[in-house]
Amino acid sequence: MIGVGTSGVVVQNIPRADSALIDALGACGVATVHEAQGRKGLLASYMRPIQQGQRLAASAVTISAPPGDNWMLHVAIEQCQAGDILVLAPTSPCEDGYFGDLIATSAKSRGVKGLIIEAGVRDTMDLRSMAFPVWSKAVFAQGTVKETLGSVNVPIVCAGALINPGDIIVADDDGVCVVRREDAEAVLEKAQAREANEEAKRQRLANGELGLDIYNMRPRLAEKGLKYV
Amino acid sequence: MIGVGTSGVVVQNIPRADSALIDALGACGVATVHEAQGRKGLLASYMRPIQQGQRLAASAVTISAPPGDNWMLHVAIEQCQAGDILVLAPTSPCEDGYFGDLIATSAKSRGVKGLIIEAGVRDTMDLRSMAFPVWSKAVFAQGTVKETLGSVNVPIVCAGALINPGDIIVADDDGVCVVRREDAEAVLEKAQAREANEEAKRQRLANGELGLDIYNMRPRLAEKGLKYV
Amino acid sequence: MIGVGTSGVVVQNIPRADSALIDALGACGVATVHEAQGRKGLLASYMRPIQQGQRLAASAVTISAPPGDNWMLHVAIEQCQAGDILVLAPTSPCEDGYFGDLIATSAKSRGVKGLIIEAGVRDTMDLRSMAFPVWSKAVFAQGTVKETLGSVNVPIVCAGALINPGDIIVADDDGVCVVRREDAEAVLEKAQAREANEEAKRQRLANGELGLDIYNMRPRLAEKGLKYV
Amino acid sequence: MIGVGTSGVVVQNIPRADSALIDALGACGVATVHEAQGRKGLLASYMRPIQQGQRLAASAVTISAPPGDNWMLHVAIEQCQAGDILVLAPTSPCEDGYFGDLIATSAKSRGVKGLIIEAGVRDTMDLRSMAFPVWSKAVFAQGTVKETLGSVNVPIVCAGALINPGDIIVADDDGVCVVRREDAEAVLEKAQAREANEEAKRQRLANGELGLDIYNMRPRLAEKGLKYV
Amino acid sequence: MIGVGTSGVVVQNIPRADSALIDALGACGVATVHEAQGRKGLLASYMRPIQQGQRLAASAVTISAPPGDNWMLHVAIEQCQAGDILVLAPTSPCEDGYFGDLIATSAKSRGVKGLIIEAGVRDTMDLRSMAFPVWSKAVFAQGTVKETLGSVNVPIVCAGALINPGDIIVADDDGVCVVRREDAEAVLEKAQAREANEEAKRQRLANGELGLDIYNMRPRLAEKGLKYV
Amino acid sequence: MIGVGTSGVVVQNIPRADSALIDALGACGVATVHEAQGRKGLLASYMRPIQQGQRLAASAVTISAPPGDNWMLHVAIEQCQAGDILVLAPTSPCEDGYFGDLIATSAKSRGVKGLIIEAGVRDTMDLRSMAFPVWSKAVFAQGTVKETLGSVNVPIVCAGALINPGDIIVADDDGVCVVRREDAEAVLEKAQAREANEEAKRQRLANGELGLDIYNMRPRLAEKGLKYV
Repeated sequence: MIGVGTSGVVVQNIPRADSALIDALGACGVATVHEAQGRKGLLASYMRPIQQGQRLAASAVTISAPPGDNWMLHVAIEQCQAGDILVLAPTSPCEDGYFGDLIATSAKSRGVKGLIIEAGVRDTMDLRSMAFPVWSKAVFAQGTVKETLGSVNVPIVCAGALINPGDIIVADDDGVCVVRREDAEAVLEKAQAREANEEAKRQRLANGELGLDIYNMRPRLAEKGLKYV
Repeated sequence: MIGVGTSGVVVQNIPRADSALIDALGACGVATVHEAQGRKGLLASYMRPIQQGQRLAASAVTISAPPGDNWMLHVAIEQCQAGDILVLAPTSPCEDGYFGDLIATSAKSRGVKGLIIEAGVRDTMDLRSMAFPVWSKAVFAQGTVKETLGSVNVPIVCAGALINPGDIIVADDDGVCVVRREDAEAVLEKAQAREANEEAKRQRLANGELGLDIYNMRPRLAEKGLKYV
Repeated sequence: MIGVGTSGVVVQNIPRADSALIDALGACGVATVHEAQGRKGLLASYMRPIQQGQRLAASAVTISAPPGDNWMLHVAIEQCQAGDILVLAPTSPCEDGYFGDLIATSAKSRGVKGLIIEAGVRDTMDLRSMAFPVWSKAVFAQGTVKETLGSVNVPIVCAGALINPGDIIVADDDGVCVVRREDAEAVLEKAQAREANEEAKRQRLANGELGLDIYNMRPRLAEKGLKYV
Repeated sequence: MIGVGTSGVVVQNIPRADSALIDALGACGVATVHEAQGRKGLLASYMRPIQQGQRLAASAVTISAPPGDNWMLHVAIEQCQAGDILVLAPTSPCEDGYFGDLIATSAKSRGVKGLIIEAGVRDTMDLRSMAFPVWSKAVFAQGTVKETLGSVNVPIVCAGALINPGDIIVADDDGVCVVRREDAEAVLEKAQAREANEEAKRQRLANGELGLDIYNMRPRLAEKGLKYV
Repeated sequence: MIGVGTSGVVVQNIPRADSALIDALGACGVATVHEAQGRKGLLASYMRPIQQGQRLAASAVTISAPPGDNWMLHVAIEQCQAGDILVLAPTSPCEDGYFGDLIATSAKSRGVKGLIIEAGVRDTMDLRSMAFPVWSKAVFAQGTVKETLGSVNVPIVCAGALINPGDIIVADDDGVCVVRREDAEAVLEKAQAREANEEAKRQRLANGELGLDIYNMRPRLAEKGLKYV
Repeated sequence: MIGVGTSGVVVQNIPRADSALIDALGACGVATVHEAQGRKGLLASYMRPIQQGQRLAASAVTISAPPGDNWMLHVAIEQCQAGDILVLAPTSPCEDGYFGDLIATSAKSRGVKGLIIEAGVRDTMDLRSMAFPVWSKAVFAQGTVKETLGSVNVPIVCAGALINPGDIIVADDDGVCVVRREDAEAVLEKAQAREANEEAKRQRLANGELGLDIYNMRPRLAEKGLKYV
């Protein structure tokens, strides 16, 4: 078994979830998916989109890269299929601009749906023009070198979340969430149930009913000792 | 008297300023109001809007909530009237997503104008669609529990500013400012005087006159020893 | 020679680069110019634009200002010509709002193209309406005083970069880069060569060729020991 | 009533708590006092001591000071009595070195017990030699000016906590906590009860009994659904 | 298989590495162990010791806890054996004081060697007196509740590193590193080889030989184009 | 002239200030030297010592290094003389551990007095044992590579300050300050005058005289409108 942070390895054939399943998770969005899987898998809040209004889900092609060295991005693109998303974690904190419009052009030509990077990105005007979505820790033009190996498609810890190659990434304006490939089907089921349930609540709340009543919170608040003065 | 951080209390009938006064303060905007009241009352710069181009003023319904626990938000909504704004400070630093589209639906149905939260918010796409404005410390989907009491309508310190229930919150793209209810009328007067005064200056500056001359700065600069070389 | 941080001095006639040269650098953008000059001159990633989609280059009029004191901004504007950009560094970390719509009106009337400030800015709605571009460390309405001298057109360190008066500032959505006036012509040449070269690569990448092959990376990756499994 | 952030005022005669009460609170320490008063009043975790092993309590003489301007410190010292502690909050974020060995000498000669400052301090070697304890946001030698008024003995928000002149400050290696003067007696009673109670628990825990049993947690954990596997 | 972030589970019998192996890793220290295992497993640099001069290794008993809720710490202690170390990661960012002298007394009575916590700790004076070592993200007295389940002995991501129950934690003044239990023997071998090798180098360097010569760097520097002027 | 950030160059013979002058500056300490030269030259407050109670001054041997690459440190040591101090700035933000006990052994054998590094350091226990003082941005064991050129003895911007090779670095518990070699004599004169002047003031303050009176502040405070209530 290949551990987190293993260096110098490219895993070539990774399992991926079914694309209909992935798309259905994407339609649910980050907050719902995160809740549906027991409030886990969320990446840190500093992972911000460079665009607004994009929501997607895709299969993770993972990259472990040295700080300031984007060589492994080029290696990773060869491993991508249509429907994948690149997910890069540096081996130590870094905000250099690993990714710009040229690599995005390459990624797009292979059907890559976007990039999640716990580091910097550049050429952001071009990336928005190309409609290539990115969630990153920083926007920074600082160039990188190509000198030191990292790995592709090994488990990584990205912005505080464990991501295995082939896991499903869900991303929107709220941030980024990872769903383990093995859990995807169960999570989708719960996410869709949650959405159905929320729709009914939304109507009642819109009509002026209070959450206090809908969720029957008053007895427990009283029991805890809440005082109205 | 109820102190900052008191727990387990809901104050039901809070005084509010006159709505015309509130609206007039809102029209002045954050920078002008902050100046007019002697450069105080500004919340920390990390309180950022999730939308662009919104400017408003409203009466604060305050919430002191435990970290990662949004129970008091539900309690607070019952205390809201049309024209109020929810203002939440966690009892210790937290960026969890206390507030999303369901609670926003509930708040909106009661005429609540927006949310100020020194923590996280989620469902930001939906909130923008609903035109429900939010100023927050973070955008983060992390879910919260409903287990521990806080308080509603007690004094709170939010992002470095003391806020009493019924104080006026002014918010726009520059951030958030609080005006004590007792000071509102005097502050408005000064703010409007400031605006009138600024308009005249703006014309002169647009015509190429220098601030150095309009404000007669040259003698004092010379006295301080400024050297032109 | 006047050193970084010298106080109480205004240098009146600074050399500037040729405006055609400056415009041509602006057209290249931050990432390209930064690469063309050997990956130096980039300001820290916390220098963010208050608007989206602006790209420009201009001659730096530098300001060294005390924390919370914007007096020198007024002094600096008199030194500005059409085509200049104001660049302010506080003498110690500060995020106060040194600059708002009134000073922007004054600056605009003299043909100033924008502002780079390692501190705060306010009236951001107005600045966007006026199409006056700003890159700043913070958006913050906090007012400033006019009590203590700083300097104008002395060398400054702004967001980690040394900037001499008359240096060329290039700024866009990726951030801010400085080019020494003496280097501008050579940097432009390299930047334009780089752009020409990139265009050819972009076509090949768009057609599905891999960076691995275009840049002939495979032999060196193998030599370093990269393993495909 | 004088509000938070009021400028240009020195309140000369402030009420103080009884010194025996203050000393007794100091003996309890920050964690115990914070718990005893309902988990409120704690200053932010970035307020760190420049020394190790000091524990004290004292009456707050409050200072609201402009960024980078330490004039009000000199004004404040005249207002101090033996047993006081200086508490300074800047009107906007600042880490300049407002306080060094000279002012410490002056403060010490009046019996001032220490300094709480949401900004910087310098001459830290000397301050440690003098055994003058300081809790600060930063250690930074940056000098300040004496140009702009602030206030002394008005309410301030310091590191997220509301502090009124005459409130009791408790500080040790864990940080800083404020107790309202009006609450001091009640808080002390609870703090001492808590200490007595803890002593008994400490013995049982030292003997190997588990908190799970001492606090009878098992039934409620089971009820919540905790599974042992 | 139990995933990262699973809630409501206590795994009772975890495998541990041999204690001689653990002690030997501890003797090597963080920097050497980190290098020996291929520069991975290091926790973020914000994990700082509350004491100076402690170096240890121990078996991880892992805790996933909600923000501001230390219930699971009590549950975890029952699972500890002599030679273990508690490792706590909150499910969202938090700096509350989960751990103080009472729980430390309990942990110590069971032979627990210390605590690694990506959150806050309190009673630090007492902990140092007890010689109970802690590496934490913050020192903060803020109290916690006991309301919501987390898990014990599930995989966690702590300060950016994946930690499985039973993994070996190495900690000293440089920070904290994790070694997978399965890798411990191989890592120790490499770490000891590295130490032996370094000792010889240290002598040569102490005698004035240059790293440039010992590591034969000159030809490669010349080849890369380094110019001496 | 060699600019800030130039890559691939080693300047071999740099001018240094007179050692008696350097030692005398060191004796004054950071706060005094910073004041004496007009409150400039201070490095950012995040540059913290790994030890307590060290005060020194030395000639800067500067290093510009890529992120995560410590090759240039080895190159720099050959350029060092007794009485020098290594000063390293990475070309983009980085906290990796560039420096440990082996390089320190090498540096010490050549008479190097210490290290200033806007990045990480490791083996801090050993460095303290060796009495090799370090001021750094981070303590972090993360290893570095030796692949990419930087430069030695070129001007650098380190923690916000411009440092030329041969400039004098003054460092103590308050942080780090740089004095231009050309200014050293004048700065020393002013620093010593300042110390003499302070000594007299210290006596008066210790005797209970107020700064308000010694510095004759009362009239100007009154003129500014300070009100005693």
